[in-house]
Amino acid sequence: MEPLRVGMLGLGTVGGGVARLLSGEGERIARRAGRPIQLTTIVVRDPKRPRAIAPPPGTRLTDDPRAVLDNPELDVVVEVAGGIEPARGWMMAALRNGKDVVTANKALLAEHGADLMAEAGRTGRALAFEASVGGGVPVIHALTVALTANRVDALAAILNGTCNSILTEMTESGRSYRDALALAQAQGFAEADPTLDVDGTDTAHKLAILAWLAFDHRIGPASIPRRGIDTLDELDLRFAAELGYAVKLLAWAERREGTVAPRVAPTLVKRGTPLAEIRGPFNAIRIVGDAVGEVVLTGQGAGASPTASAVVGDLIDVATGRARLTTRFLASPPSAVPSRTASAQVVDAAIQDPRRRHYLRFGILDQPGVLGRIALILGQHGISIASVIQHDPGEKLPEDSGEVVVPLVVMTHLARESALERALEQIDRLDCVRAPSLQLPVLD
Amino acid sequence: MEPLRVGMLGLGTVGGGVARLLSGEGERIARRAGRPIQLTTIVVRDPKRPRAIAPPPGTRLTDDPRAVLDNPELDVVVEVAGGIEPARGWMMAALRNGKDVVTANKALLAEHGADLMAEAGRTGRALAFEASVGGGVPVIHALTVALTANRVDALAAILNGTCNSILTEMTESGRSYRDALALAQAQGFAEADPTLDVDGTDTAHKLAILAWLAFDHRIGPASIPRRGIDTLDELDLRFAAELGYAVKLLAWAERREGTVAPRVAPTLVKRGTPLAEIRGPFNAIRIVGDAVGEVVLTGQGAGASPTASAVVGDLIDVATGRARLTTRFLASPPSAVPSRTASAQVVDAAIQDPRRRHYLRFGILDQPGVLGRIALILGQHGISIASVIQHDPGEKLPEDSGEVVVPLVVMTHLARESALERALEQIDRLDCVRAPSLQLPVLD
Repeated sequence: MEPLRVGMLGLGTVGGGVARLLSGEGERIARRAGRPIQLTTIVVRDPKRPRAIAPPPGTRLTDDPRAVLDNPELDVVVEVAGGIEPARGWMMAALRNGKDVVTANKALLAEHGADLMAEAGRTGRALAFEASVGGGVPVIHALTVALTANRVDALAAILNGTCNSILTEMTESGRSYRDALALAQAQGFAEADPTLDVDGTDTAHKLAILAWLAFDHRIGPASIPRRGIDTLDELDLRFAAELGYAVKLLAWAERREGTVAPRVAPTLVKRGTPLAEIRGPFNAIRIVGDAVGEVVLTGQGAGASPTASAVVGDLIDVATGRARLTTRFLASPPSAVPSRTASAQVVDAAIQDPRRRHYLRFGILDQPGVLGRIALILGQHGISIASVIQHDPGEKLPEDSGEVVVPLVVMTHLARESALERALEQIDRLDCVRAPSLQLPVLD
Repeated sequence: MEPLRVGMLGLGTVGGGVARLLSGEGERIARRAGRPIQLTTIVVRDPKRPRAIAPPPGTRLTDDPRAVLDNPELDVVVEVAGGIEPARGWMMAALRNGKDVVTANKALLAEHGADLMAEAGRTGRALAFEASVGGGVPVIHALTVALTANRVDALAAILNGTCNSILTEMTESGRSYRDALALAQAQGFAEADPTLDVDGTDTAHKLAILAWLAFDHRIGPASIPRRGIDTLDELDLRFAAELGYAVKLLAWAERREGTVAPRVAPTLVKRGTPLAEIRGPFNAIRIVGDAVGEVVLTGQGAGASPTASAVVGDLIDVATGRARLTTRFLASPPSAVPSRTASAQVVDAAIQDPRRRHYLRFGILDQPGVLGRIALILGQHGISIASVIQHDPGEKLPEDSGEVVVPLVVMTHLARESALERALEQIDRLDCVRAPSLQLPVLD
């Protein structure tokens, strides 16, 4: 049978993994795909540079993207170059030239997924992107194929393995954020410049893709409220543990009365629930569907081999013809369909303002009556307290500067964030409190 | 667009869920399927019997299966009647008559999946069965589509929600098996006759299906070694907890040197790992792939609504045309494919005989020197001890009869089961030991 001929843009970590998998397991993959999958051309910046891993025999290295994009002999383009441009232009060109496209590029999909999908719809080609979120965890297939009988009501996910490694280390060894980051860098779980991971940008990109699929609404990643782990104190992980919670960098979005308010934030997650127990560089996605209830998918969210598993899975989907059928559904504009029941209006978290529990940490002067004054203000805003931790003055806060400032931790019952913000503003003005107070949401 | 016309065989729990989902969420489902999905005919034993849930308007109830199987106006047959016959004959007839088939029938697939798949291959129709294993958890899609770039190296799964509910209750409240079963029956998690659940038969059926997909080899469920939870003592759950483990009814199978030895057994699973933390009527499937590493899928493994989510998901897959493409791959006989690297020879667990840790409980007479004699025999068979629990004589064994028999618990280091069996045989003959000793495998 005619092989599926593949050109690849990029030969970094993921590209190397794809090349290895296709050449090392070619026979097995041919069997699953119904025909051989042949990687014929790879575009790299410098074809002459010596490489740790040799490209598979019979593969041509070139620095000319047109050797892939304009090559009439190629059926599919795999884009693993990353970044917005020129990747966007390359993918548009590939689709226009009648090629199916497989990509791992989350930033590009988060920003321009709608345009790319529309182009794929126009040309009748496949745009497959399982590798863009969750590495090898098949969350894109779950949302676009397997769970598609469901209206998704909620998503909560750990989507960044670097952050989860750092948080696990901080929790289990009591290390500071800075020390845990340094360790993650030494172990290869964090990049030299980890900004986009630790500040939540990478997670917001992935959430934008998931929210699009789950709630049928495009939202730019920049408009997702986001807080990273880079401002977390190990103290809060310790207090959370005392209260029976783990702190995770969560992407979440819930459907409430036709609205959805995606957000990224360090969140307290109840120990013993699946997301709380995800350790190290793993990802986990919790999907709540109206029919299926709660489904959780976990696995390695990054790395050459897991991500290559997703890319090659997509190539097999392209080879069998399934991928084009999935793209056809995703590309159909909402206006062309009989119902909009599955879509939701994206709103700001402050507008949706759901009731949930909150973790609060105040830096207070070590004097009697402070808890009473704080509790009073919370009560005035209708917020009741579930539990309180007040430790010995020995446990000083990092922002301490001469005065004896001690931490006071409050776990609230269900409360609206809007009410909480008003209360915190008032509490932070008390003379016995050293602002700013810390507030983290809770997923029960 | 032309609707997809569906006939359904059966209107029990799952069938009712499917009818409700199709009629209640018809517009949303039509959008995902690209065309309306119309349930036109349902075959039931007695169409006149009053029903708690009325069939959707426009649906015809009949007691004549030919009204579905021979009806040229129907595109798909959904089989949710259960049992081997007449379901098998019905599905064969439906495929022969050019209809796609969607089924939730695990017993039938475990026994006759190969024949049905071959027939689907011959007729070019789809045979979709996501609902047969794991309820709403998309494990069939994961193994046949999303993770198909992988060679699966190991499977370990909690596939029976009834057993998991009972084990959770025994662990968390210290109830006996009998009391926990009665409670599960009262709560609706266990049937009046729970035999097929608690003795592991249901789990073996599901494992036969997963092992076929994962290891490309058909194995009859009857030839899978199986042990249920009905012989477990709450004592062992308590000792396991002391050692840091949960006891789960696990289906497992690992690829070792081209062989795979599926088995079903109560197993100690390390606390803090995903499978150990699955509580109540949930299912979880851990798949280890050569590229993706470890992936775990969890969710509700039974119930009208989660199972209907899977059936309707399959109907959408049929409507888009994807399901036929997947069936084409599954139906291709191994001999027709270029490579057999993905398939494995099914062997008896005793032949594969991997090294693993084991939990042992001996009933010993309360006298000095017994531990030493047991340790000596274990050592003679090359089995070393990782930890020992020996409690007060107050903690008598249930099989106690006059003598003071106390439990002695041993956790071994990695050891071969064959060596262990020889050692246990010898230990059980000691005059200070009341046979039989208990042995449970450990998943680390």
